[in-house]
Amino acid sequence: MEDEYTVKRLTVLGSTGSIGQQTLDVVRAFPDEFRVVGLSTNTNIELLEQQVQEFRPQMVSLREPSSRTPKLPADCQVIPLDMVAAHPETDLVVMAIVGHAGLSPTMQAIRAGKPIALANKEVMVMAGALIQEASNWWGSPILPLDSEPSAIWQCLRGEEQEFSRIIITASGGAFRGKAQEELETVTPAQALRHPTWDMGKKITIDSATLINKAFEVIEAHWLFNVEWDRIEVVIHPQSIIHSMVEFKDGSVKAQLSPPDMRLPIQYALFYPDRHSNESLVSFDPVASSPLTFEPMEPGQYPSFDFVLSVGQRGGTWPTVVAAADEIAVDLFLQGQLRFLEIQQILRSVVDRHEPIMTPSLEQIIATDAWAREMTMNILR
Amino acid sequence: MEDEYTVKRLTVLGSTGSIGQQTLDVVRAFPDEFRVVGLSTNTNIELLEQQVQEFRPQMVSLREPSSRTPKLPADCQVIPLDMVAAHPETDLVVMAIVGHAGLSPTMQAIRAGKPIALANKEVMVMAGALIQEASNWWGSPILPLDSEPSAIWQCLRGEEQEFSRIIITASGGAFRGKAQEELETVTPAQALRHPTWDMGKKITIDSATLINKAFEVIEAHWLFNVEWDRIEVVIHPQSIIHSMVEFKDGSVKAQLSPPDMRLPIQYALFYPDRHSNESLVSFDPVASSPLTFEPMEPGQYPSFDFVLSVGQRGGTWPTVVAAADEIAVDLFLQGQLRFLEIQQILRSVVDRHEPIMTPSLEQIIATDAWAREMTMNILR
Repeated sequence: MEDEYTVKRLTVLGSTGSIGQQTLDVVRAFPDEFRVVGLSTNTNIELLEQQVQEFRPQMVSLREPSSRTPKLPADCQVIPLDMVAAHPETDLVVMAIVGHAGLSPTMQAIRAGKPIALANKEVMVMAGALIQEASNWWGSPILPLDSEPSAIWQCLRGEEQEFSRIIITASGGAFRGKAQEELETVTPAQALRHPTWDMGKKITIDSATLINKAFEVIEAHWLFNVEWDRIEVVIHPQSIIHSMVEFKDGSVKAQLSPPDMRLPIQYALFYPDRHSNESLVSFDPVASSPLTFEPMEPGQYPSFDFVLSVGQRGGTWPTVVAAADEIAVDLFLQGQLRFLEIQQILRSVVDRHEPIMTPSLEQIIATDAWAREMTMNILR
Repeated sequence: MEDEYTVKRLTVLGSTGSIGQQTLDVVRAFPDEFRVVGLSTNTNIELLEQQVQEFRPQMVSLREPSSRTPKLPADCQVIPLDMVAAHPETDLVVMAIVGHAGLSPTMQAIRAGKPIALANKEVMVMAGALIQEASNWWGSPILPLDSEPSAIWQCLRGEEQEFSRIIITASGGAFRGKAQEELETVTPAQALRHPTWDMGKKITIDSATLINKAFEVIEAHWLFNVEWDRIEVVIHPQSIIHSMVEFKDGSVKAQLSPPDMRLPIQYALFYPDRHSNESLVSFDPVASSPLTFEPMEPGQYPSFDFVLSVGQRGGTWPTVVAAADEIAVDLFLQGQLRFLEIQQILRSVVDRHEPIMTPSLEQIIATDAWAREMTMNILR
């Protein structure tokens, strides 16, 4: 069977979320190139059933206890998440689970030698040093799937030599240019109105606080092994230039495209190949004009400054801030926390942390649990 | 001697022109990396003497008969241009001679197996098919030195797969946005006022007519082996994005830097390495904002449309237009031709041409001579 040699077997973890669904959209566009062998969901059993019907994976995973038993074909097994992640019949694991729940399956996939297309930046914030070390040790490449690190990765292609600077672009989120005072009373609905990207809720709120951008800086630090002072962030409201790399001679490369997550997803899925996809809108320079840049003025985005500074401390510090943010964003979405309180609660939890500077995976998991618990306790 | 193994030996043809001088500026910045073994000038004997004094080449070439005998050190030989171009003790030939005079030394260098850093786009317009064929046959790579093809070359780096589109940027020259009627009376001094680049006179006038951009499209067609309908031109007045490449998946890469010819020169000289050069100003996104794009409206730049259409006919057609343009620009600079007459004279000469569709080098040289003569005859 020709199939055996050419088809890439994919496991999509978090397949019912925004990135998961868009990943399956890419698979739909290339039915001869990919076969889906594994899927997972947290709570959306109905959509998972539909996906299983369409893609016929041999295994799925769902949160236990689940709200109900899914209706699945007889040849589709329900197995634990870590086992799906590390399954021998997978060629590439797409990690599209949001937040700390992605850490364990990411580590399992790495230890099984699987290449990972990583959409979940929180795990790189929580455990970047460990993940990078494990990736090198087991020879499991981590392929960025988010638009900014994908742009950096694309710009670095064929440029083996040391680069001098990474310039990450930021749309500025829903409240770009607003003063902190103006954000006192903003609602979840307002914060979820992202100007350029249609994304999941967690990342959209993190974009509004700019915490997402701090996470991306931390992620880039680990993914591309680059010192903090060589990573710059610039506001680029149009989200056309997804990031840039400056090389030693001062030449800069940028990666551009209309904002559509399916392009970086497709790039990671096909890497090192590129394939034409009719359903992606092509770049039109005149229609995209002007492309503008604004500085990240010091003090204008205090959540960004704070989270990045905590990330730079290393050890379990960033684990704490990632965990607290996950809880805080969730509570904000539920209307139990005001927008500016997200930042306050992060500071309170971080203030109470006693760090471990070279943590094991177990210590990171324990720190995450401690920080989540502490966040809830402070709020009660 | 360590020197023998690491120093790149350069011959700079046209060393007293704008690109030649900037090439020597790069050499000055990296005294341990390059040794200048050959120089040439057309008429600027005084500057050539200074360059010989500073860089101590073993050979120079000048136009015969020269206005006076240059004062040269005893160890510096005066030899014919083609011999300097093909000299065995050269590792890289920088072709910075303007116009048709660059054709013969370019071919000689190619036939001697020398890599060529090519600033002279006219030779690619005159004889692109032949030069590309010879480059392949003798294994002499042609490294673009001009900012736009250098940008394309940089964007293609590490991307072996077929690209879908090249987007060449154009500043629009001195008269961007002006109607043809407004150009009736413009003076050479006005046409020489380029908004973003400080360049030689010929290319600055060609930028004002947009003929330079048509030449770049023709050059790109041959250099990158790309069909005409996959080359696009867009007006980008800031000259920060030097060109872009779209890949099969729709992802676009752009190369950016403040306009300074020393960067693409240095890139070609060091290729595939990149080296830090303190004297180059680094890219500042906020200071460069906004980056804008405007369409090349059909009919707005008739010289561009005409020259490109002639180039697309192939054979000796583009040879004629390049030759006629060289004479016409010269006469415009001397005040003997009005700006809009440049285009008229090109049309008249092209109208009289009987093409050869697969010309030899000799036939191209003869066509060039015919077209130059015809241009003068029409004007008399």
